[in-house]
Amino acid sequence: MTSVVVKIDSFSLSTPANIEQISKRIVEEKKRGRNIIVVVSSEELLEEPYRKFAYALSKQPSKRELDVLQSIGSQATSALLAIAIQQRGFKAVSLTGWQAGIETVEVNQKVRIEQIKIESIINYISKGDIPIVAGSQGFDYKNNKISILGMGGSDTTAVAIAAAIEAECVEILTNSEGIYTAEPSIVPRAKKLKQISYDELLELTHLGSKIVHPRAVEMAKKYDMPIIVRSSTSDIPGTLIKGEVEMEKNLIVRGVAYEAEIIRLTVGYEKYEHALLANIFTTLADHQIDVDIIVQSVIDGVKPTVSFSIDKEDFADAIKVLESNKSTLGFSFADFEVGLAKVSIVGSGMVSNPGVAARMFNRLCKENIPVKMVSTSEIKVSVVVPQEDMVRAANALHDEFNLVEEYV
Amino acid sequence: MTSVVVKIDSFSLSTPANIEQISKRIVEEKKRGRNIIVVVSSEELLEEPYRKFAYALSKQPSKRELDVLQSIGSQATSALLAIAIQQRGFKAVSLTGWQAGIETVEVNQKVRIEQIKIESIINYISKGDIPIVAGSQGFDYKNNKISILGMGGSDTTAVAIAAAIEAECVEILTNSEGIYTAEPSIVPRAKKLKQISYDELLELTHLGSKIVHPRAVEMAKKYDMPIIVRSSTSDIPGTLIKGEVEMEKNLIVRGVAYEAEIIRLTVGYEKYEHALLANIFTTLADHQIDVDIIVQSVIDGVKPTVSFSIDKEDFADAIKVLESNKSTLGFSFADFEVGLAKVSIVGSGMVSNPGVAARMFNRLCKENIPVKMVSTSEIKVSVVVPQEDMVRAANALHDEFNLVEEYV
Repeated sequence: MTSVVVKIDSFSLSTPANIEQISKRIVEEKKRGRNIIVVVSSEELLEEPYRKFAYALSKQPSKRELDVLQSIGSQATSALLAIAIQQRGFKAVSLTGWQAGIETVEVNQKVRIEQIKIESIINYISKGDIPIVAGSQGFDYKNNKISILGMGGSDTTAVAIAAAIEAECVEILTNSEGIYTAEPSIVPRAKKLKQISYDELLELTHLGSKIVHPRAVEMAKKYDMPIIVRSSTSDIPGTLIKGEVEMEKNLIVRGVAYEAEIIRLTVGYEKYEHALLANIFTTLADHQIDVDIIVQSVIDGVKPTVSFSIDKEDFADAIKVLESNKSTLGFSFADFEVGLAKVSIVGSGMVSNPGVAARMFNRLCKENIPVKMVSTSEIKVSVVVPQEDMVRAANALHDEFNLVEEYV
Repeated sequence: MTSVVVKIDSFSLSTPANIEQISKRIVEEKKRGRNIIVVVSSEELLEEPYRKFAYALSKQPSKRELDVLQSIGSQATSALLAIAIQQRGFKAVSLTGWQAGIETVEVNQKVRIEQIKIESIINYISKGDIPIVAGSQGFDYKNNKISILGMGGSDTTAVAIAAAIEAECVEILTNSEGIYTAEPSIVPRAKKLKQISYDELLELTHLGSKIVHPRAVEMAKKYDMPIIVRSSTSDIPGTLIKGEVEMEKNLIVRGVAYEAEIIRLTVGYEKYEHALLANIFTTLADHQIDVDIIVQSVIDGVKPTVSFSIDKEDFADAIKVLESNKSTLGFSFADFEVGLAKVSIVGSGMVSNPGVAARMFNRLCKENIPVKMVSTSEIKVSVVVPQEDMVRAANALHDEFNLVEEYV
């Protein structure tokens, strides 16, 4: 019998009525005759009282114990969903991460799934039980501790279990009906995608990461595990994420993404020999400052400069770091521009369609939107534009690349 | 190095300020140079929201999942106490029941500790860490589930760990300063006991069970593990519970216990042949009705009767059971008396001191308190008296047996 791993987000499990509704959905899936393994997200509302307690006791509670407290959220949710499913006359069992056999290791302070001992899950599904696994948690046997996978942990748990038991696919039930060509709140004509490839979704960072975490998408890509994103409250078809996407409508671009509140920093050097780029970005990385687009212009006879974009919240830190390391970094001046935004077009069709970037710049030019920085990859072109033009740029590009067609 | 298992009740861990205070206490104990293993009780306040959720989803949530939800309380408390101890610069780690190696089995729907794999605890204490074990929980490997020990589970966890690691003693930190000769709220002259034997404490049910659960006392008796009961908020000496108690003041009686809201049921038979006592008590037991004192009078030429005492809350059920089984049980009439109470004197000195019961009856007679039923054991005499006389009886007996002396 084929198996499906169904991941439920915390939004869909936050009240008894929601849990009820999800249990109905799971039971319907089960009735279709496939093995169902459920992974639930952690419910922040349930964890919150413990966190408050912890911070009342210590300004810096230890990570180990915060993880124990955090594991409680999905542990509770898994038990509650099991109860709701049992109430419908079906067999279900909640499993903590370690009961589900999820073993983790810590590498560079990041928790990774090392292996999944699938015996427990296999044993339950072979008896017709529905295992409800607490997501985002595992056990670190080396350090004898409950571990928390961190950002995107529940999605990752679902994909990892699916890969380990060789499931047919992962279904992510969420409060969105699927992946859209753009954020509907800023691009009103945004349409839901029928399919998208792992790589495209990874490039649509801000568009997609709210729904499926990039970490899980990367793992799904590695194991070629299809992911279906669909609404937790309705039965309408969602978006299928997989390796090869049929280009039925020959779409070059599959999505438009944006990111507001970008700041451009520019650093200038007196001489070319001073411009040791590695130094500046190593220093920024050491201070946990995330740099996105980097543009360097080396023109003969002109003093070298390097520009890079950062998030608004890192701005003050970045300035401080640059100032205090000015002499070792060797630059002569630093400049910045605030009030910018990034708009990107993403699509694997770009690889075989030259001129996509040019078409993008042309359209933006026609709209009188100045382009401040450009960055390109195989399947993505990003431009930095004034923040005030962001929504107009996203909508114009969405039209330009025909993303308004029905359910592409 | 000697080890001590310190058990903290939930009352002492219900607020950040309480946890703070307890962490200070633990650290002081640690500084005295012994290994400390802490066992924390489950905090009902922290579990309550989950229970409500569960009962919103199902009128009868499964025991398995309710246990998962219940395990969360002490899991959270153990992490929070670990954080508070770390804040004081000491090493501490929270451990769930299964992390602490507590393996349970289920026998007749009751959860029992089967064994404790002590490697984990030993490993932590050998490194100078203070393990904080979530009490009242373990793991049932046969059924792959988190198990809850039930009533008195945290006390039992503490004694079981102490026995397994061969600790010096168990210290129970609670909101009482020790075990008293009587409940101070009804016997104002009640005094704290310096020592009491396991058996005496077991007989002082209602007096002692609020502080140390009989199940844990029985286990302590089996392994001859001393238990010290003391206040969680002050340093004053508490009560030592152990096997042999020095009778330094030659006290025959060591405590007076009472139990209010007792009902006496009397069942009469036409003929002696009908009075199959086993039947009636088996039937009552089958319906979970707890019978305490049983008095049977067989007098030649008189119709046989049997009287027994039950708790008020079982009254309606008992009547129903007796009525519906009247024909099979063979009795001809049933009668009852409400508004009664039980008062007991307990002391291992009774064994070698005949006449203790007589002295008790004499004193009650002098006080004009009628005795409705009597029951005796090696170290305990119980009488059933009118509820209105209970407090007076307890105080009179407390005086009669010289329990008013300082710290006996």
